[in-house]
Amino acid sequence: MKNLVLLSSIAVLARDVTAMYNGLAVTPQMGWDNWNSFGCDVSEDLLLNTARKIVSYGLRDAGYTYVILDDCWSSGRSPGANGSLIANSTRFPNGMADVADRIHDLGLRFGMYSSAGSMTCARYTGSLGYEEVDAQTFADWGVDYLKYDNCYNEGQSGTPLITYNRYKKMQVALNNTGRPILYSLCNWGEDYPWKWAQTISNSWRTSGDITDFFDRHDPRCPCPPSNGINCALPGFHCSAMNILGKAAPYIDKGIPGSWNDLDMLEVGNGGMTDAEYVAHFTMWALVKSPLVMGNDFAKLGGRDLSILINPAVIAVSQDPMGAGAFRRWIYDVEDRDGMAEAGTIQMWSGALSGGDFVVALLNAGTRPRMMNATLADIFVDSGAEHSELAQQSWDLYDLWGNRMPEEIAAGIIGGNVTLGAGAANVTDYYYNATAKSYAEGLASNDMLLMGTAAGSVQPMGVVEAMVEGHGVRVFRMRMRSRLLRRRDEL
Amino acid sequence: MKNLVLLSSIAVLARDVTAMYNGLAVTPQMGWDNWNSFGCDVSEDLLLNTARKIVSYGLRDAGYTYVILDDCWSSGRSPGANGSLIANSTRFPNGMADVADRIHDLGLRFGMYSSAGSMTCARYTGSLGYEEVDAQTFADWGVDYLKYDNCYNEGQSGTPLITYNRYKKMQVALNNTGRPILYSLCNWGEDYPWKWAQTISNSWRTSGDITDFFDRHDPRCPCPPSNGINCALPGFHCSAMNILGKAAPYIDKGIPGSWNDLDMLEVGNGGMTDAEYVAHFTMWALVKSPLVMGNDFAKLGGRDLSILINPAVIAVSQDPMGAGAFRRWIYDVEDRDGMAEAGTIQMWSGALSGGDFVVALLNAGTRPRMMNATLADIFVDSGAEHSELAQQSWDLYDLWGNRMPEEIAAGIIGGNVTLGAGAANVTDYYYNATAKSYAEGLASNDMLLMGTAAGSVQPMGVVEAMVEGHGVRVFRMRMRSRLLRRRDEL
Amino acid sequence: MKNLVLLSSIAVLARDVTAMYNGLAVTPQMGWDNWNSFGCDVSEDLLLNTARKIVSYGLRDAGYTYVILDDCWSSGRSPGANGSLIANSTRFPNGMADVADRIHDLGLRFGMYSSAGSMTCARYTGSLGYEEVDAQTFADWGVDYLKYDNCYNEGQSGTPLITYNRYKKMQVALNNTGRPILYSLCNWGEDYPWKWAQTISNSWRTSGDITDFFDRHDPRCPCPPSNGINCALPGFHCSAMNILGKAAPYIDKGIPGSWNDLDMLEVGNGGMTDAEYVAHFTMWALVKSPLVMGNDFAKLGGRDLSILINPAVIAVSQDPMGAGAFRRWIYDVEDRDGMAEAGTIQMWSGALSGGDFVVALLNAGTRPRMMNATLADIFVDSGAEHSELAQQSWDLYDLWGNRMPEEIAAGIIGGNVTLGAGAANVTDYYYNATAKSYAEGLASNDMLLMGTAAGSVQPMGVVEAMVEGHGVRVFRMRMRSRLLRRRDEL
Amino acid sequence: MKNLVLLSSIAVLARDVTAMYNGLAVTPQMGWDNWNSFGCDVSEDLLLNTARKIVSYGLRDAGYTYVILDDCWSSGRSPGANGSLIANSTRFPNGMADVADRIHDLGLRFGMYSSAGSMTCARYTGSLGYEEVDAQTFADWGVDYLKYDNCYNEGQSGTPLITYNRYKKMQVALNNTGRPILYSLCNWGEDYPWKWAQTISNSWRTSGDITDFFDRHDPRCPCPPSNGINCALPGFHCSAMNILGKAAPYIDKGIPGSWNDLDMLEVGNGGMTDAEYVAHFTMWALVKSPLVMGNDFAKLGGRDLSILINPAVIAVSQDPMGAGAFRRWIYDVEDRDGMAEAGTIQMWSGALSGGDFVVALLNAGTRPRMMNATLADIFVDSGAEHSELAQQSWDLYDLWGNRMPEEIAAGIIGGNVTLGAGAANVTDYYYNATAKSYAEGLASNDMLLMGTAAGSVQPMGVVEAMVEGHGVRVFRMRMRSRLLRRRDEL
Repeated sequence: MKNLVLLSSIAVLARDVTAMYNGLAVTPQMGWDNWNSFGCDVSEDLLLNTARKIVSYGLRDAGYTYVILDDCWSSGRSPGANGSLIANSTRFPNGMADVADRIHDLGLRFGMYSSAGSMTCARYTGSLGYEEVDAQTFADWGVDYLKYDNCYNEGQSGTPLITYNRYKKMQVALNNTGRPILYSLCNWGEDYPWKWAQTISNSWRTSGDITDFFDRHDPRCPCPPSNGINCALPGFHCSAMNILGKAAPYIDKGIPGSWNDLDMLEVGNGGMTDAEYVAHFTMWALVKSPLVMGNDFAKLGGRDLSILINPAVIAVSQDPMGAGAFRRWIYDVEDRDGMAEAGTIQMWSGALSGGDFVVALLNAGTRPRMMNATLADIFVDSGAEHSELAQQSWDLYDLWGNRMPEEIAAGIIGGNVTLGAGAANVTDYYYNATAKSYAEGLASNDMLLMGTAAGSVQPMGVVEAMVEGHGVRVFRMRMRSRLLRRRDEL
Repeated sequence: MKNLVLLSSIAVLARDVTAMYNGLAVTPQMGWDNWNSFGCDVSEDLLLNTARKIVSYGLRDAGYTYVILDDCWSSGRSPGANGSLIANSTRFPNGMADVADRIHDLGLRFGMYSSAGSMTCARYTGSLGYEEVDAQTFADWGVDYLKYDNCYNEGQSGTPLITYNRYKKMQVALNNTGRPILYSLCNWGEDYPWKWAQTISNSWRTSGDITDFFDRHDPRCPCPPSNGINCALPGFHCSAMNILGKAAPYIDKGIPGSWNDLDMLEVGNGGMTDAEYVAHFTMWALVKSPLVMGNDFAKLGGRDLSILINPAVIAVSQDPMGAGAFRRWIYDVEDRDGMAEAGTIQMWSGALSGGDFVVALLNAGTRPRMMNATLADIFVDSGAEHSELAQQSWDLYDLWGNRMPEEIAAGIIGGNVTLGAGAANVTDYYYNATAKSYAEGLASNDMLLMGTAAGSVQPMGVVEAMVEGHGVRVFRMRMRSRLLRRRDEL
Repeated sequence: MKNLVLLSSIAVLARDVTAMYNGLAVTPQMGWDNWNSFGCDVSEDLLLNTARKIVSYGLRDAGYTYVILDDCWSSGRSPGANGSLIANSTRFPNGMADVADRIHDLGLRFGMYSSAGSMTCARYTGSLGYEEVDAQTFADWGVDYLKYDNCYNEGQSGTPLITYNRYKKMQVALNNTGRPILYSLCNWGEDYPWKWAQTISNSWRTSGDITDFFDRHDPRCPCPPSNGINCALPGFHCSAMNILGKAAPYIDKGIPGSWNDLDMLEVGNGGMTDAEYVAHFTMWALVKSPLVMGNDFAKLGGRDLSILINPAVIAVSQDPMGAGAFRRWIYDVEDRDGMAEAGTIQMWSGALSGGDFVVALLNAGTRPRMMNATLADIFVDSGAEHSELAQQSWDLYDLWGNRMPEEIAAGIIGGNVTLGAGAANVTDYYYNATAKSYAEGLASNDMLLMGTAAGSVQPMGVVEAMVEGHGVRVFRMRMRSRLLRRRDEL
Repeated sequence: MKNLVLLSSIAVLARDVTAMYNGLAVTPQMGWDNWNSFGCDVSEDLLLNTARKIVSYGLRDAGYTYVILDDCWSSGRSPGANGSLIANSTRFPNGMADVADRIHDLGLRFGMYSSAGSMTCARYTGSLGYEEVDAQTFADWGVDYLKYDNCYNEGQSGTPLITYNRYKKMQVALNNTGRPILYSLCNWGEDYPWKWAQTISNSWRTSGDITDFFDRHDPRCPCPPSNGINCALPGFHCSAMNILGKAAPYIDKGIPGSWNDLDMLEVGNGGMTDAEYVAHFTMWALVKSPLVMGNDFAKLGGRDLSILINPAVIAVSQDPMGAGAFRRWIYDVEDRDGMAEAGTIQMWSGALSGGDFVVALLNAGTRPRMMNATLADIFVDSGAEHSELAQQSWDLYDLWGNRMPEEIAAGIIGGNVTLGAGAANVTDYYYNATAKSYAEGLASNDMLLMGTAAGSVQPMGVVEAMVEGHGVRVFRMRMRSRLLRRRDEL
C-alpha cells in the first residue's frame, strides 16, 4: 500500500531525489541585508556593528547567517582591460577582504551585490560583460553570497532565453571560482525565473521591491496581487500582500536549493503594526522565501526581535521537506483600507516533514473575525472530502503561542539579558540551530519548534480561530490517531 | 451540386488530403499512464500488473493500447560522453527492454517519458542536449511512445520558434531511429503548440496538469478557463472544466495524426462523482483528446470501468473523420460550488463520418436542469437558421444509453465475468476493436457504437434533455430523411 | 495660411509623398476568391465560369479585377531538389498557365495561393523554404496576385522580426521574378503586421477568417472585437462586427500600396440579412479593406449584386486620397442577439479627396433607431468644437440612395438586361471604371459616385438618420459654403 | 543619524552618483518642435521665424533652447552607395548647415528628425541601415539634437533586445561623430524603453503621439491610461490624461540625463481650455518630461505664453535633484465627459532639491471641487503616518500664484512690451535662466521660482485647495520648523 504522505502529495515526494545546483540553500537562506533601511548609506562599520548584534541577539544561532552588503559599495573598476571592481576606500577603509574575514570570525557569512547590467540600480558599476573578473574578485575577497540585480541590462530581456543567458554567465563564472557562493537572482520575476532559475541559482526574486506597508497600493508597483505571472513592470514599492498574492501561483516552483525570493523582510522598520509584521514574517516562512532581515538594529524593538527569533515559525521555513505551503482559498472582504490592494481572507496549508502539516488563517481585512478552515480544504491535495488525511484527528500547535515576551527581547537588546546557559527564561523562547539543527530538533519533537498546544480537530472537522485585522493565526498539525499509520506498517 | 457535408464543413473536408507527420495517431491515441495515481512510485510490477488488467478487463480490445511509464524510472546516465540513460535496476530489475517485450507480448505498446530539459519534472535526468542518444536508447528498448515534458528547460522558451526548435530536436532524433514512436509533447500549451506542433508530433498538451476535481479552482493553475490561449503559467492542479474551457478556441487545431492533449483521464481516482467522470470522459472523447487512463486498477470500481469501456463514446473519439466537436454556446449559471471556476452550461456539436453528428449538453452547474439545443445552433457551421442540415429531421442515439451495468463491470473486475465468446450479457456492452475497427463498426452501423435510440428531432427543431448537475447528455445524430441525399445523387 | 485640409488631417497629407512598395494596390485591390463559398472544391471550370460572370455582371468594370484561386489546387512538387509545384491535373486539366491566359483574355487578373509554411491550411504543399522556386513558378504561369497564408509555419512566429523575415523571403522572391505580383499577406494579424508589412506587401490580413454572420460570437475566434491588437489566437469563424471592431485602432496603418485586409466579403452567401450585407460592404469600403468577393455566382441574388456594384460606395473605397475612415465613437446598447459579441452603435468618418468627407452611422444593435453625429465629432481630427470644418455648412449625399433596383440586378443576372450603351436604365446605376477611373469620375462630380442628395447640415450642426437594426447609413459630405475656400485663395 | 531626506527617499539619493550617458539633458530638455501644429509644412522660414519669436518672447531665456525640425525635410539620398540625406532645396534653399548656423546665432540649438526605419512616419527616407552616414551628416550640419522615430522599422521589434539593438546603432553613430547630440528616442514606449534606454539616450517617448485634447478617448490610441506598461499598439491621438496615466508607474525610470518623454506640449494649439493647458503643462513639468513646445507662434495668445513662461513651474521641471513626482492616489469620480477616458482625481508629490517638495492636486473631473491631501500621503515614501516629514509644519507656495498677467503676455507678443532691464512689470514674471540658472535661483530663494505664499500646514495636517474642473493646483512645500534640522546638525 502506498504511503499516506505519498498519496497526499505526489509532487512533493518526487522532489526528494536530486540535489539542486550547488548544494547551498537546501533550506531557504537566512540573513540580513542593508538596503531596506540604509540604502546607499553603507560602510564597514555598519556591516560589522550589525553583524555583532546579529550574534549577540541570538539571531545567528537562529539561522540568520548571511550578512549582505547591497548596492553603492564600489568606486568603479581599476584601470586597464578587465579591470576589477574596487571597494570605496572611504566607506571600507580596510578593504572587502578584511570585512569578510571579520564577518567570518563572527561565525557569519558575507554577501555582496552587483547587477547583471552596465550599472547597478544606484548607478554604480555593474558586472554585465565582466562576469568572470567580478566573480573572481568576489571569491578572492571571501564572499559567500551574491545578490545579482537587473538594472541597466542593455535591453537583454524579453524572453526567458535572453534573460537566462545573461544570468547564466555569472553562474558559470561563480562556479569557475571554485568557491561555494550562494547565487541570489534579483530580476524581479521578469521573464518568469520560476521556469528556469532552479538549475542556475539558489533563489530568484519574484516581484518588484518590497516596501514597508502591509497592503498599500502604489502606482510604481502597478501589477495587482492577482497578476504575479505576467507583470510587464515589476516596479518597486510593492506591499507585502501584493508580493504574497503574486507568488501564490508558483510557490511550488521553489525547491530545495533554489527558492522563490519574495524580497527582504521589513520587520522592525516601523511601517507596519505588530500584527502585520507577524503576518508578513509568518507567510514568508510558510512559502519558503529566504528570510533576510532588512532592519536597522539601532531601532529594533523588543516586539520586532521576538518576531524574527520565533523558533516555531523558523522551523517551518527550515523544515527539511522543503515544500512551501499553498493558498487553498481566498475570498474578498469588504473591510479594507482606502489605498489597499484588496481586502481578502486566505487559507494556506502545506506538508512538513514527519507527517506534520501547517495551516495559516490570514486575515487581510481590517476587522478582526473568526476564521475557519475545513480539513477537507486543508488536505485538498489528497482529495478534499475524499482525503484519508481529512479523515484523521489532528492536534494543533500555535506557532506564536510561545512568542518571546517583549521584556525579555528588550532585555536582550539592552544587554540586560544574556543568551547563556543559565538564562532559563530565555531558553524557553530561544533556539540555537547551530547546536541542534532544525531538522534534528523537529525529529526530536523539541517543543520550541512546535509552538504551544492549541486543541485538536476531529475527522472531517474544522480549524477555527479568532484572527485580528491584518493578522494571521498559524498552526502546526500533527496526526493524533496512529490507526492509519499502524495499518501502513502491516 | 455540392455535397451536403462539404457545404456544412469546408474546413473539415479540407483535411482529408495529406497524412500527418509519421502515420501514427490517425485517431487520438488511447492507453494508460501511471502518473495520475502513482506518481514516482513506479516499477516493472506496476506496469505489467496493470497491462494484464488492461487486457483482462477488455480495455485493450476497446483500444487502450499504450502502457506508458511516466517520470522517475531512471538512475541517470552511464559514464562517459553521451552516456545513455539507465533504468533504475531496483524498480526495473529485468531492464526496460524486457518490460517492453512483455508488454508487447500482451498485444500492447510501451510508452516512456523524458523531458526537454536538463532534468525531468521530478528531477531525474532529462534529455535536453542528449536527444540523439536517448531516442536511440528508447528505440533499442522497443519503446513505441514518448511523452516529452517541459521542466527545467534552461530558459529555452518565450517564442514559438525557441520552443519548436527544442522539441524539433527530439522529433528528428526519434525519426532517425527508424522505429515508429508516437511523439507526445508535454509543454503545457506554452508558446502555443497548436500553432506549430502538428508537423513534428502526434499530440501536444494544452494546459497545466489535470487534477481529480471537476471544476475546483486552484491557485497553482492560475489561468481561468476563459484564458486558454495566452496563459503565462500553465501550472498544475487544473480541473477538468478548466482544461476543457481553455481548449474550446483551438479544438480545430487537432488533426488526424496530431491532437490536442487535454491530459490524462482521472476516471476511477475517486475525486469526482460518477456523473462528473462521465462528463469528463465524454468531453475528452468529443474534442479528440488522447484517452489515456490515469487510474490505479487496484481501486477501479465497476462504474468506473463502465465509463472507460463505453463503445459508443469511444467510437466518437476514434471516428475516422477525425474532427473534434466545437463549443457552440456557453452561458453562466448561478448554481456553482464555492471554489468552482465558474458555473456554466454549454452545448458542443461536431461532424462525424458518414454524415452523422454528435451533440453534447453539458451542465457544469450544480443543479439538474432541462437543457436544449436548436438544430440551428447545432449546425451553425452550415448557416444556423439558413442551414440545409437544420432543415432535416434527425434521429438521436444516446451514447450512454447502453452503458455497461455496474454488476457486469464489477464481475469483470472480480474475475467472475469473462469477455469470451459465450458471454452474451457482456457482448451487449463490450466492443472488440481489434477484431473490427471502429471505422468498420461505424460503417456497418454496429449498434454498440451507436448507443440507444432516443427519439428524433423535426426540421428546425430542438434537442432537449434533462441533465444532472455536473453532468452531460450526449447524442449521435443521424439524418432521418433521405430526401436531400437523393437529390445529391441526381 | 495653411490649407484647410492640412489643418484637419496632418497625418493624411503626410502620406502623399512616397509611393509604397511595388506600385500595385494604390487603392485597395478588388476581386473574387473562391474560399468563402467553395473551399477546396476548386477547378478550372469554377474559375472561368466565375470570371465570365464577373465580366457579364459588370463587376469587372466596377473594379473587381483579380480572380483568385485559393487553397487545394496542387498535387505537390515535381521530383528532385527544389521541385516546383504541380497543379492538380484533374481539377486543372489545361494547366495553370492556360487558366491565367483565359482570365487575362477576359480583361481580368489571376491570383493564386500558397502558405508561408510547410503545408497550406488545407494541408497541401506549402512554400516555406521554397520561396524562390515557387515565386518563379507563379510568375511563369502568369500569376498577378499571391495570397500567402500562415499555416504550419514551423514555429516561425513570436516576434514581428521572426514573422517579418519569413514573409520577407517571398517578397524578395516575387520581386526577383520581375513580374508585378500583388502580394497579399494572410497571417491573421499575428505579430502585428500593421507595424511592418507596408514595406514588403500590398495588404495584410488583420484577424482570423471571416464567417457569414454579422456579429455572432464563436469560440474559435476567441478574441473579442475590443481586442484587435494583441490576439494570441486569431482563429476563424470571426463575425463581420468582430473583425471591424478589432481593426478600429489601426485603420490608419493602411496606406496607398499596402492595406489592412479585413478578409473577403460574405455578400451573397446567405448568412446575413440584406441590411447586414449593406453594412458589411459599406464598412469594408470605408476602412480601405480590399474588396474581394467570396460568393458563389450560381446563387447570387439581385439584391446581392446591387450591393457589390454600388458605385458610390466603391468610390469611397477607391478614393485617390487613400485614407481610411476612423471610428469616432462607440456606445454599448442593450438590444443584441443572444450570441452577439456586443450590441453597439458607432460613428465613423474620414476624409476623401477633393475636400469631401464620409460619415457612417452604424447601428449594430438589433432595433432600428434614430442616430446622429455632430459635426464636432465628425471633424474631431481638426479640433472638434474648435474645428473650422465643423463651422461650415455641408451637403449630404446618401451613398445608398441610388442603389440599383433589385429587378434590374436580377435582369443582369438572368441575362435579360445588358450593360451595353443603350441600356439607359442600367447606366443610372452602373459605373464603368475601366472607361473612367474613380479618380476621374470623382474629379468630374459624376453623380453615380456621389449618391443622392440628402439634405444639408448647418455649421456646428448634426447629421441625423433613421438606421435599421444591424444596418448602416452612410453619407458623402461636401462643403456647401465656399467662404473659407475663398479666404484661402487670398 | 541619517539625513532626513535620505530617510524619505533612498532611491532618490542613490541617484546622485553617476552621470548618465553623454552629459546632456541633466535636466529635461526644453525647446520647440514643429510637428504638432505644422506637420509636414516645414521650411527654413518657419524655423527661423519661430526661433526669433522664441528669443523675443523670452522663452529662450526661460530655457527653451532646442528648435527641432521634425519629419518631411528631406529629398532622399544622394546617389551612390551610402549616399547621404539631402535637404529639400525648395523648403530649405540655403541648406541645413545654414539653418543651423542662424539658429545658433540666436543662442539656440538645432534639432532634427529621422526614423529607425526604412522610411520616416511621413514616408520620407529613413535611417535604418544608414546610421553612420546619417549621424555624420547631422553632425556636419551642426545638429544638436536628434529625434529618432520608429516607423517602418522592418519588423525589428518584439523584445527589448531587438529594439535596443536598433536604437543602439544610432547612438554609437552619434557618439562616433564627436559632436554632442542630444538623442531623443521616439519608439512610443514599445518594448519598454524605460527598462533599457537610459544608457543609450537622453529621453524616450512613452506612448503614442499626443493630441490636442485633455482626456478624449480615440480608438487610434487604444490602450487606456491604466495600461501604460504593456500597450501592444501605442497609436496616436492620445489625450494628455491618457499619456499621463500611462506614465504613472514608471516616472522613476527617468533620471538625470535620460528622461521619460510624454510627447510635445499642446499649449497654444486651441483644443483645450486654459485650465486644461495649465494642468497639462504643470504635470509635464512635475514628471520630468521634456518640455518641447508644439504651437504655432502666429496663433499664440497671451494666456498661452503666460503658461509656457511660468518660472515657478519650470523651476520644478529643471530642479537639480532630477526626481519626478509620483502619483500618490487616484480615485474615480462621476463627473466626466462622454468620450473621456475616465473621470478621476489624483494627487502627485515629489522631492525637490534643498529639502523642498511639490504637491499637485489634479482634478480630472469636469466639476470644480475642494481637494485635499494629507501630509501622510504626500510623504508616503518616508512612512506615511510614521513619517518624520509628515510631522513637520510646511509653508506652501502656489506655483501659479505669480502667473504673468494676460495683458503683459499679450504685450510681449504684440511687441509692445520688451523684456529689457527697465521693464519692471515684466521682471515680476519673467526669469532669465541664461543669466542665473534655475539651480542658482533656487539656491538663492528667488521668489520668481517659488510662486506666491499660500499658507502653511501643521504637522500631520492637510493641504487643501479648490480646484476647477480639468484643472490643477500645485504647491511648493518648504519645511517651516527648523527643529529637526537642528537636531541633524548635532
